[in-house]
Amino acid sequence: MRVHLGTIRRPFGLSGDGRLLIALRVCAAAALLAAPPAFAQLTGPLVLKEQGSFFVGGVTKTVSQPSNGPAPAQTGDITVNQMYVQYQIPMAGARHVPVVFVHGCCLSSKTWETTPDGRMGWSEYFLRKGRSVYLVDQVSRARSGFDPSDFSAVRAGTLASARMPAILDATHQLAWTVFRFGPKFGEAFPDEQFPLEAVDELYKQMIPDLNSTLPQNANPTWTQMAALGVKLHGAILVGHSESGFFPEQAALIDPTGIRGLVTIETGCPPLTQAQLAKLAKIPTLVMFGDHLADVTKPLNWMGAFESCNRFVAQLEQAGGDAEMMHLPDLGIKGNSHMLMQDKNSNQIADLLIAWIDHHVETRRGAE
Amino acid sequence: MRVHLGTIRRPFGLSGDGRLLIALRVCAAAALLAAPPAFAQLTGPLVLKEQGSFFVGGVTKTVSQPSNGPAPAQTGDITVNQMYVQYQIPMAGARHVPVVFVHGCCLSSKTWETTPDGRMGWSEYFLRKGRSVYLVDQVSRARSGFDPSDFSAVRAGTLASARMPAILDATHQLAWTVFRFGPKFGEAFPDEQFPLEAVDELYKQMIPDLNSTLPQNANPTWTQMAALGVKLHGAILVGHSESGFFPEQAALIDPTGIRGLVTIETGCPPLTQAQLAKLAKIPTLVMFGDHLADVTKPLNWMGAFESCNRFVAQLEQAGGDAEMMHLPDLGIKGNSHMLMQDKNSNQIADLLIAWIDHHVETRRGAE
Repeated sequence: MRVHLGTIRRPFGLSGDGRLLIALRVCAAAALLAAPPAFAQLTGPLVLKEQGSFFVGGVTKTVSQPSNGPAPAQTGDITVNQMYVQYQIPMAGARHVPVVFVHGCCLSSKTWETTPDGRMGWSEYFLRKGRSVYLVDQVSRARSGFDPSDFSAVRAGTLASARMPAILDATHQLAWTVFRFGPKFGEAFPDEQFPLEAVDELYKQMIPDLNSTLPQNANPTWTQMAALGVKLHGAILVGHSESGFFPEQAALIDPTGIRGLVTIETGCPPLTQAQLAKLAKIPTLVMFGDHLADVTKPLNWMGAFESCNRFVAQLEQAGGDAEMMHLPDLGIKGNSHMLMQDKNSNQIADLLIAWIDHHVETRRGAE
Repeated sequence: MRVHLGTIRRPFGLSGDGRLLIALRVCAAAALLAAPPAFAQLTGPLVLKEQGSFFVGGVTKTVSQPSNGPAPAQTGDITVNQMYVQYQIPMAGARHVPVVFVHGCCLSSKTWETTPDGRMGWSEYFLRKGRSVYLVDQVSRARSGFDPSDFSAVRAGTLASARMPAILDATHQLAWTVFRFGPKFGEAFPDEQFPLEAVDELYKQMIPDLNSTLPQNANPTWTQMAALGVKLHGAILVGHSESGFFPEQAALIDPTGIRGLVTIETGCPPLTQAQLAKLAKIPTLVMFGDHLADVTKPLNWMGAFESCNRFVAQLEQAGGDAEMMHLPDLGIKGNSHMLMQDKNSNQIADLLIAWIDHHVETRRGAE
């Protein structure tokens, strides 16, 4: 329904049936003013059907803790491995497959919210495009908490300090090069898309990474992501960087609830034929930004890119619907590792949404 | 504007001016259907003017880190002491003073979201009552991150393990009694208001508390809360449990942006006359639930209650507008320490909103 707002200014000077017609036009205009078509707009009111948060998974672990500030010495139970999920459902959410976003190393779900320079993040952008959005804090990070047992044991003297899990905290200097803002700290690529005037706001998002407290080959986040897909009766899983291959890891555990795999900016490990056959049943998109050859250490981006090109080719050979979206090949230049926060983040989101519409949604080009 | 939905079903069989009247009634009903008055309703669409997240504060710290997984040995800068804030503004938000919620020990902002038994939390309830809501993750917790330096130093062998900050992690057993669910673990008070059938979901919210990494008498969260008040051009600060007195601590640092202090379920430390005079300029509410005398260890709730009764009396003596709201005195029984998640959480929220309207808002009883 489209009504020119000018309609409302027309005089009521008509008689007979014309009066009803005018009144109904006023009515339509008033309804438009009262409830703008938010899902077609990036500004104006945001209308939600529902929002909230919950946990997926979590197991009970018995621990002994020494006296600690206000808390006495205690032997008791804590819950570990739970995964925090925050969600919003737009009014028309049921028309699209929900999208689950998982952040990378040394970051939290803040990744997908307001960008460092204060623009709308992907979480709200996808919402305004009619998608239900689920933001995950990885197990052992942010609101999901972590298992402190080994740290407490070192402090209590029952575990050697060298055996304490390593905390991974990226410095500003490391982030600058690894995230491909420029060739060296403080120097930007000429066409850099990351909003470097606000890079200090990105640094505030960078928080200690405690994934070393988790089993290396059985990260509980993978299991909980698979369970979240089942709970949602189908979801598209999107991973980035450290979590870039988590969607695939989740699908290898249980593909039941997974309708699409989106792998952004990571390395793709070699898989067996049986694993490839399992993943080939799910549409897969791999996405990379620019300047991959311009940063070689401490992270070899071309190596990561090539490993994923191999993965995409193997999926296709196994009969899968897989695509490598290397942004420069589409004429989109200068994107960093943090492409969901880059100045052209909406453009990249549109590419992802178009891929979802054409490869995952049942109706092509659904809006 | 109130329109019975039945209006829409009336026939269009009238002539002359009556027709316009009916059409306008249809119009009103249609507008109601298109955009229900969400702020008067607890169900139906949630209409937001704006939402997002940002950080307050944060300082740069130079650290030396050994090689750590994919990260090489590095000397560089990290950001610490930043405070993560997630906010939502309702369509009519500017008509009310924003409310800032800060969580307690071993918890995150999840405290204020969907309750353990799946009901609407205070964050959305206040929003639907027309309030702008700001959820804070305390500095050193959840999405605010923490300073890992001392942990890394212990692991590297440059700091004695006994000097490593203690991580406070509450067990299920400790929470049961301290949160006053019942006299001992697994046994509930007969009139207990906490939704104990969903207590496992509360346990998942309980995450390690790293406040011991912060200066004890200069918690950066206090400073950032004061700064947040200034940024918002006036806010009501609500603290709970560990953060119960943080609103007052923030006001002692800078009261400029603080329009109201709400202290829920904590101990109130003794203050100087100068400090009391400073706080007495700001309306203050202290709130406690039930069964205070029924739990004496490890936390003496009656002692905490009495310390806050003293604080309220001192504020009144200093000319302040201060109130102790002890729920059982209002005939509201059985509330736990987690009263924002109790089965009657909406009722408690209404009491808080009524206090805000009458003591903080310029127009009494504003809606």
